[in-house]
Amino acid sequence: MSNPDLYRALFAPRRIALIGASTDAKRLTARAQVYLRKHGYDGELYPVNPRAAEVLGEKAYASIEDVPGPIDHAYILVGTEMVEEQVARCASRGVPVATILADGFAEAGPEGVERQARVLASARAAGLRLLGPNSMGFVNVPARTACCVNAALDVDRLLPGRLSLVSHSGSLMGTLISRGQARGVGFSKLVGTGNEADLTVGEIADLLVDDAETDAILMFLETIREPDRIAAMARRAHAAGKPVIAYKLGRSKEGSELATSHTGALAGSDESVDAFLRAAGIVRVDMLETLLEIPALLIGKRPRADTARRTVSMMTTTGGGGAMVVDRLGVLGVETLAPTPAMREAVAAKGFKIGAGRLTDMTLAGTRKEPVAAVLGELLATPHTDVAVAVIGSSAQFHPQLAVAGLVEAKRTATGHAADKPLAVFLVPQADASLALLAEAGIAAFRTPEGCADAIRAFLDWRAPAEAPAPLGDVARAAALLTPHAAGTVLDEAESRAAFAALGLPQPGAAVLRDLDRFSDLPADMAYPVAAKIVSRDVPHKTEAGGVALNIPDAAALRQAAAGIVARVRAHKPAARLAGLLVQPMQKGLAEVILGFRRDPQVGPIVMVGLGGVLAEIYRDVAVRCAPVSLEDARQMIAEVKGLAPIRGYRGMPEGDVEALARCIAALSDLARLPEAAAVAEAEINPLIVKRKGEGVAAVDALILRAGGAASAHH
Amino acid sequence: MSNPDLYRALFAPRRIALIGASTDAKRLTARAQVYLRKHGYDGELYPVNPRAAEVLGEKAYASIEDVPGPIDHAYILVGTEMVEEQVARCASRGVPVATILADGFAEAGPEGVERQARVLASARAAGLRLLGPNSMGFVNVPARTACCVNAALDVDRLLPGRLSLVSHSGSLMGTLISRGQARGVGFSKLVGTGNEADLTVGEIADLLVDDAETDAILMFLETIREPDRIAAMARRAHAAGKPVIAYKLGRSKEGSELATSHTGALAGSDESVDAFLRAAGIVRVDMLETLLEIPALLIGKRPRADTARRTVSMMTTTGGGGAMVVDRLGVLGVETLAPTPAMREAVAAKGFKIGAGRLTDMTLAGTRKEPVAAVLGELLATPHTDVAVAVIGSSAQFHPQLAVAGLVEAKRTATGHAADKPLAVFLVPQADASLALLAEAGIAAFRTPEGCADAIRAFLDWRAPAEAPAPLGDVARAAALLTPHAAGTVLDEAESRAAFAALGLPQPGAAVLRDLDRFSDLPADMAYPVAAKIVSRDVPHKTEAGGVALNIPDAAALRQAAAGIVARVRAHKPAARLAGLLVQPMQKGLAEVILGFRRDPQVGPIVMVGLGGVLAEIYRDVAVRCAPVSLEDARQMIAEVKGLAPIRGYRGMPEGDVEALARCIAALSDLARLPEAAAVAEAEINPLIVKRKGEGVAAVDALILRAGGAASAHH
Repeated sequence: MSNPDLYRALFAPRRIALIGASTDAKRLTARAQVYLRKHGYDGELYPVNPRAAEVLGEKAYASIEDVPGPIDHAYILVGTEMVEEQVARCASRGVPVATILADGFAEAGPEGVERQARVLASARAAGLRLLGPNSMGFVNVPARTACCVNAALDVDRLLPGRLSLVSHSGSLMGTLISRGQARGVGFSKLVGTGNEADLTVGEIADLLVDDAETDAILMFLETIREPDRIAAMARRAHAAGKPVIAYKLGRSKEGSELATSHTGALAGSDESVDAFLRAAGIVRVDMLETLLEIPALLIGKRPRADTARRTVSMMTTTGGGGAMVVDRLGVLGVETLAPTPAMREAVAAKGFKIGAGRLTDMTLAGTRKEPVAAVLGELLATPHTDVAVAVIGSSAQFHPQLAVAGLVEAKRTATGHAADKPLAVFLVPQADASLALLAEAGIAAFRTPEGCADAIRAFLDWRAPAEAPAPLGDVARAAALLTPHAAGTVLDEAESRAAFAALGLPQPGAAVLRDLDRFSDLPADMAYPVAAKIVSRDVPHKTEAGGVALNIPDAAALRQAAAGIVARVRAHKPAARLAGLLVQPMQKGLAEVILGFRRDPQVGPIVMVGLGGVLAEIYRDVAVRCAPVSLEDARQMIAEVKGLAPIRGYRGMPEGDVEALARCIAALSDLARLPEAAAVAEAEINPLIVKRKGEGVAAVDALILRAGGAASAHH
Repeated sequence: MSNPDLYRALFAPRRIALIGASTDAKRLTARAQVYLRKHGYDGELYPVNPRAAEVLGEKAYASIEDVPGPIDHAYILVGTEMVEEQVARCASRGVPVATILADGFAEAGPEGVERQARVLASARAAGLRLLGPNSMGFVNVPARTACCVNAALDVDRLLPGRLSLVSHSGSLMGTLISRGQARGVGFSKLVGTGNEADLTVGEIADLLVDDAETDAILMFLETIREPDRIAAMARRAHAAGKPVIAYKLGRSKEGSELATSHTGALAGSDESVDAFLRAAGIVRVDMLETLLEIPALLIGKRPRADTARRTVSMMTTTGGGGAMVVDRLGVLGVETLAPTPAMREAVAAKGFKIGAGRLTDMTLAGTRKEPVAAVLGELLATPHTDVAVAVIGSSAQFHPQLAVAGLVEAKRTATGHAADKPLAVFLVPQADASLALLAEAGIAAFRTPEGCADAIRAFLDWRAPAEAPAPLGDVARAAALLTPHAAGTVLDEAESRAAFAALGLPQPGAAVLRDLDRFSDLPADMAYPVAAKIVSRDVPHKTEAGGVALNIPDAAALRQAAAGIVARVRAHKPAARLAGLLVQPMQKGLAEVILGFRRDPQVGPIVMVGLGGVLAEIYRDVAVRCAPVSLEDARQMIAEVKGLAPIRGYRGMPEGDVEALARCIAALSDLARLPEAAAVAEAEINPLIVKRKGEGVAAVDALILRAGGAASAHH
């Protein structure tokens, strides 16, 4: 186990102090005590309340110092203003973990940020670990420890299960408990992390990787903190065969703003979060209910290696019900494939008959256990699809045992490939009893066609955690070139080109004319027409400053163009320090591409590729990955950008040098490997010209912004 | 009432014959009788079964002829092969409506198509109306008439309600009954239309427009048949204040194929269906459960006139729960707006406090009836948003009466604008009792954040049925020009241009050189550079045939280009009849647009606009409407095409002549007004050059395909 002491104090404390426990059972601050006892906690509870001798039937203590013996876990229930003092007392009392209920910290403006920093500092100094602030606590169902204030615990009995949840939102803990219980899905551990001042989702989930009572780790995320820790946790979970599944708020601008203001985090882009989760091997669901429904689909399964194929086999006892799932899957890019002739023969050999259509309608064969098991057995066994889907109609409502018998039998008897293939079941009518029976049998069951399709899509998108790729270029040399530039400064184009060259980015042979009166310094064999651009750190937006001239036909025109550029730039920004003129042959190709590198505030360095020009911006048609990426990742990024279809050979159009483009993406992503002293905040190549297959690419404009200092002033 | 006799025979028969009723209560063919009696039907039942004197306790008859007295409705339950005979007998017996259960008709290949045609012909000849084939029957809940074989009727008691459903799929009738009952949503009438050989969704729904027991009409559609009838029904429903709501299969290629093969219909494009439903004033939901959840949001409300604004006000008792809805709405383009200062003051005047954030968190004010009613009252009353949303957390699970009290109070006391504003409630935990209480109060309640957002999006997309616009050009003249061309032929470009000119489409002054040896026939003031294109009906794809030359600088070059074109076209297609050379000045503009007109197999004539070029095709970035369209519709189409953002003035780029483009779209759409003898199957202008604002547009390539004959051979 990664940290058994923390695990015990956080999830399995035997001696819990409730600081600020109320004597009024109806108050929020009484609930932890009420729920702990209600759900059978048999360890020691120490209510701390200076105004009562007894709290809800248990002996109370005036202060934490008065509590006898060691304390495993303190739940600090006092108001915001009093939290600091209580944390300090817990720290000096040697409490290993304290949970803080109050809000009013980092999510509540600058004053709250400072308050949280002070609390954290005093805890850290004493080795006290904190959960929260703004945490509703935790529940350990098998250990009967409901140290939590969420009202969902009013339920009579908590259904135990083998799913565990780490949630930024405390209220969602209750939501998932109540929705799970209604359909036979129970939990092992649940924890609300709130502001994550100290303990973050990654560190807590890491404890669950080693938890023998947890088969899958669910996360309800409002932001991403400590991405490296989350990625490391997911890697260990993958090794342990435990799927990690996330619902992440922030698909939209409004949602992102709200989710992050809620716990005082920074907003990033949803595309970056998607890229991060996928690279980490974490399954992201799109719909709330899928979070509860998908675990049974993934437990015991592995991410597929073949990422291109997205297919299912489907049987149904109701045409309309099956068609809804087929339709939704189609929208998500998943094709439902008809059974092969061999499958139909195999089913016939067992005495049943199925049709040749996309959707295997069981009307002919019947919906009893034997035909369902026979047909589903074939759908599971066939290697030509990735997931088996069963859609069950009205029998699921009135005859649950009959409805699920064939499904359970097919799953029970599956071996080899068939046992590795996920099975998803959509119940068309209201069918709570059937949902519960399927949950009990460990079969993934879905209430809605949309949730079923979302889960299948999520499974097909599931990847093993990405391996760290080897760098393509000379990162040390790039670092040496970048280190001298002050933090937060923009490099001029010649400097940017030099750093990119070290990383291995091909740039058209260019010359920098340092002295504008000595055109003879230019190479004699300069290939006209050329482009000329001012070189100046003070002029990052060269075109707007009049600092660029294109399609210059010959040397005479170049002199004239140079004079014009200098005059315009001087007029635009008289104080700009001019470092020369960059002259390079004009480049022709099949497409202009934009490559970018930046640091996402949530997930860190990312690399992106998109088609250049205004349309790409309008369509937001870019592929994003966490940097650095491998060549294979880069190839997949290119395949994802719709607007790059022409250079991939769309409708017989000439193919571009996609492989050279992939090398550029990977090389640019190596900026993520630079040491802190050379770190880059943002870099862009716009445009990168992609030539015909075999003829390479050419980066014709380069920009690098060093990290740190006034970096953000650039925008 | 539109057709009271049909209404009575279809929905309220008092004397029903069950032809082929089984004596085995477990058989499908016994179910109609079982369910009719189980759910309290007190009219006459006449089982027809030649091998039994009695069927399930009721006197049986050897044939329909033996049944005494008139028959209101016959349910034909016999096998496919015997249907024809029974329909003929019903026809001669004077039965007004017969429902056919068997499949094996139009959905089952050419033989089935013929069988269906024969059945229909024999029914029509006698004035017998048919429901089906492939129909599960109908249910009239208030009249206790469950003349239906769907197993969902095994339920002990049918919950009555004021929603009615018309469904292509019989099984979905059962799905909606069972899912509705579980949450307090009941039905009035339900009918499964199957193949729609005679009675279609439009005609049946039209009866429900006049049904005093129906407040909203739900449709589960696999295809669209008789679109004009559906549109007319929806117009009457709008006038009657009854919302019409559709779930339509066929969002994806796979789903469309499946849905249509299921009942033997033709597939069209989902964009066209969307356009059709919207123009008809029909609300389309994206998710199955929304079909049950949305009616309460729409009943008593009207479609908004302001189509641009898409906003909600939202209050929540749980931050995480509210954030999920805000996020999902954001993805669907709906913004959650913060309360105004005036609203906050009004709430304060009632003694409660709310924050200034986007999402009004009730944590401060409390979740009792009074603060919830006070705050929600303001969210309903404010004119700055379109929908009010309330999100309720754990109280909905354990204290349903308390949880809904404030919501019910706010709705009860709302007047004026507040009463007209829809209210959507999302219940975060599992909360079936609260769902039922809200259903009872007529408040739209949602189980999932996704369903809630889908319904709000659907309400905001809801439009009043479109008014028929006046034609822009001279349709009669266009018809006169088109009539002489044989059905199914492609017009040459000169002919197409003439027809487009009659409709008012601006085309650059072009000359047609009929005799390629007489260049002197060209106007002397021809504005070079010009384009030259072969004119030939036999060469519809001019570019591929080498029949086009562009940027011809002068008269001498034109002669040379003409010779080249003729040589290439002759080489490409020696037998082609050449009708001359079209010469027109080259056009420059800000954007190249593609305009198209075609007949969708489901919904009929449509018009589309998109950006020209390969990228527009890749992004499928087009706007589609049913033709003809008004100028205002055309303007909205232009606003919908993302790739046209540059000519709408994106980021300070020069604006294009959007108004002239809108006139072209409307003019092209007038092709839908042509009489049958002049009908056009397909027309395209590609490209249409859009110039700067005020400078107009120019159609530079035109193609018209006459409808009928070998029209489909063109592709």
